[in-house]
Order: sequence, then structure tokens, then C-alpha cells
Amino acid sequence: MSKPLILVTNDDGIESKGIRSLIEVAQKFGEVVVVAPDSPQSGQGHAITLTSPIRILERNIFKDIKAYECTGTPVDSVKLAKNILLKDRTIDLCVSGINHGSNASLNIIYSGTMSAAMEASIEGINAIGFSLLDYSRDADFDASKIFAEKLITSMLDHKGAGGQLWNVNIPKLNKEQIKGIKFCKQGIGGWKEDFKISKDPRGDTYYWLAGAFEEKDNAIDTDLWALENGYVSVVPSHHDLTDYQAIKTFTYLNTL
Amino acid sequence: MSKPLILVTNDDGIESKGIRSLIEVAQKFGEVVVVAPDSPQSGQGHAITLTSPIRILERNIFKDIKAYECTGTPVDSVKLAKNILLKDRTIDLCVSGINHGSNASLNIIYSGTMSAAMEASIEGINAIGFSLLDYSRDADFDASKIFAEKLITSMLDHKGAGGQLWNVNIPKLNKEQIKGIKFCKQGIGGWKEDFKISKDPRGDTYYWLAGAFEEKDNAIDTDLWALENGYVSVVPSHHDLTDYQAIKTFTYLNTL
Repeated sequence: MSKPLILVTNDDGIESKGIRSLIEVAQKFGEVVVVAPDSPQSGQGHAITLTSPIRILERNIFKDIKAYECTGTPVDSVKLAKNILLKDRTIDLCVSGINHGSNASLNIIYSGTMSAAMEASIEGINAIGFSLLDYSRDADFDASKIFAEKLITSMLDHKGAGGQLWNVNIPKLNKEQIKGIKFCKQGIGGWKEDFKISKDPRGDTYYWLAGAFEEKDNAIDTDLWALENGYVSVVPSHHDLTDYQAIKTFTYLNTL
Repeated sequence: MSKPLILVTNDDGIESKGIRSLIEVAQKFGEVVVVAPDSPQSGQGHAITLTSPIRILERNIFKDIKAYECTGTPVDSVKLAKNILLKDRTIDLCVSGINHGSNASLNIIYSGTMSAAMEASIEGINAIGFSLLDYSRDADFDASKIFAEKLITSMLDHKGAGGQLWNVNIPKLNKEQIKGIKFCKQGIGGWKEDFKISKDPRGDTYYWLAGAFEEKDNAIDTDLWALENGYVSVVPSHHDLTDYQAIKTFTYLNTL
């Protein structure tokens, strides 16, 4: 592979600091094309736009890089890149992020960043989603960039089947404090919701989703453990949601 | 369990024929509460509403049933049910659907119906998503209702850990033609996109997602095989997306 073609996307929108950091890293490896939402899309999960049209606008905001914003979701962005903008080309890698905030543990399910990367992996493209455990708009991505470069190198070197998917989370530490990289499994946790209930100016009640993440299993082989102990966590992930153990449990019901 | 509390939701919206059919079945088992989106939400995946408020409206459209429509996504509906509307109660089962159209194979990833059921399972609630392989608004749910009743009976009888999640798809056949139920794994398939490209009245280009589903693995142990061969498919599913095999493949990178 002389000069790989790398698709960069995210869910925080094309103007975010995180995507700019990821582009800077990806540029070192080959040709970069950016296709990302025109506005923040956190929590969009694997949503796709079916009932309305999508628009694409070319943006000249990254030096020497073809970049497009789209009005759709993160997954729409990848679909448009693959089927329209890069239709006749081979995408060697898709990188998504760097997300402002954790996508460790259960968050992969809700994450537009990871869903975009998963959509690429469904298409047989190796894909990595990067997230920094810092929600601030002005987060410091310096250490993240170092580990993104290491992991992109490794993924481009990988000779196995395409469609690998890595969920990479980076602790909010400086590069001297980060102890290394741990390949691990998805830890168990969930959101304890605490809807804010209030009234709008017309006196009608509304509910606004809020909550705190609670860890339920942060054993040593999980991403939650890795992050708490100063490691970058990498959870190899896939889109086969089958619970194979449960098939055995319930096979007796085939006689229904 | 004397009179179970059953939460009914969907992604086609509270006015759809499919949810009405599912309510009719669920009513046979206990107390039913409906919380569903106020409009069709197909393809919303696991999207949640973070940047705007959500509203709830009580609807008296089902006889003797408490029902609420919400302005959010299918997953929002389950979160509102669990944390606001049924806050102090134990939900014994969540059923989602009956979806107008297949959620077999990869479609679980994009499906609001299945994401709503998954959200319940994340909360430890047993959950079943039902889908009929018929997209029409006036689909015939008579056979679906028979199998929904069998499967709800089995899930309510299940004494194991909570949070079981079944992705149930029903072939478009009448009840005499359906051969039975098969517990199976998620078959491999994907959407071959074919965006419709056109111009709006102002002359600006737009893209509209379209495509056809292509099967890639419909071996005998998959849902795709079961459906093609006249069975109702049940894929026990979960939200652990870890690719355990790939952890072994990449552990050598822990030294990076």
C-alpha cells in the first residue's frame, strides 16, 4: 500500500477540535478525505436518515484536504463517502473522532463516533473510533494524537481480514502519565438517568435527558479498568449482536 | 408473578397498526402501558435526544390502556417509561413492535424497534422486539399475533437472569404456512446503497438514501435461513459488542 486513502469522520461535527486533531495525524499516512456532519450529533447511535434528503457541501477549512460536511448523521456521512464521494475508490481505513468524551463500555451503543466507524467496518473497511475522556470543547488532544498515530500504524500494517473495528478511549492524562495500550473487553456500566423536568415559557412540561454513568464491572480485563489505571483502552468490536450462550439456553423453545 | 406489567413500544409510531396488534396480545398477560414515539422513527437505531427537550402526551386511543406518545426516539420512549412514567414500579417485560418490515440480520443495528427493546434489556428488563416481513402500513398481523403470544408466554415463564433480548422476525405467511420457531444466530447481510440523486425546486442537489438488502450468509443456523424456510426466527441478542476473537489477535499490540 503506497499511499493509503483514509476517510475521516466524527459525530461532534466538522468544526470540532477533535476532528482537526485526527486529520493532522491521518495526514501523515496518506490521502485524507473528510466527510462529517455539519453539526454536533452526539448520541445519534446508528441512526440513518430515511424520511428526508441529505445535502453535501464542500468545505475548504483544512489545508490541502478534501472535506465535505453533510446534513445527515455520522452513519449517513460514511454511507455518502463510500457510495457517492469515493464511489470508485478503495478506502483503506476509516477513522472517527477524536470524540470529545468517553465512548468506553456501554457508550459504544449510543455513540455516533463509534457507529460511523462500525458502518465502515460493516462495509469491510478497517475502522478505528477514537475518544478522549474530556467533554470540553477545547480539550487537549496532544497525547491522544500520539496514540492515534501508533494505532493507525498498526491497523494499516494489519494483514488479516478487513472490517476490523477498534473502540479506542484515551484517559485525560498527559503523555508521560499514560502507561500504554491495553486491548480489552467492553466493561459493564450504564447510565443512571435523571431527567430534568421543567416548564417551557408557555407553561407546558418538558423532560430533558440527563444522568451519570455508573460502572458495574470494571474488572482488570475491561476498558473501564484500563482507563482508570492510566492506559489507552482498545476494544475490538463487531456488529454481530448474537448472544450465542442464550441460543443454547432457549433451543428447547424450538418446539413451540 | 400474578399480573405482570408489560411496557409496549415501537418505532413506527403510536398510530401504527403493528403496535395495536402487539397491545392486543400483551393485554392477555397483564397490565399494559404504552410509551411510543408520536411519529415514525424507522432507522433511528439507538439514537437518544440530548440537545432538545422531550414532551409526553397521554393518548386515549387504546381501550382500557394507559398510553403515552413522546416526541423523542424509541430509546427515549423506554428511558421515559422506566425513569418517569413507571418510576416506582417493576416492569416485567418490554415488547417492541410489531415492526412493519424485517429487522433480521444486520437490520438490528439500524432498527429503532430493536434498539428500544435493547434499552430495556440494558436495564435488566426482559425484552422482545417483533417484526413482520411486510413493510405495508396495512400489513396482516394475524399470524404474528399467534407467535407473539407463544413467545411472550415463554419469556414470562423464563426464570433465569433478567435482561434477555430476543430479535423476533416473522415471515410474510399465513399461520398454516409457518412451520414453527427457530432460535438462531444473526445472519450476515448488508445494504447495497443506491442513493437517489436529484435537484430540489431551487436547483440544489440532494441525496436520498435507498438501497436493497443483500444476504451474504444465510446458512442453516441463521435467521435469514429460518425466514426463507418458513420459520419465525428468534435471535437472542445482547449489547456486548466485544469481538473476543480479535482481542487474542491483537494482544501483541499491548506493547506499543
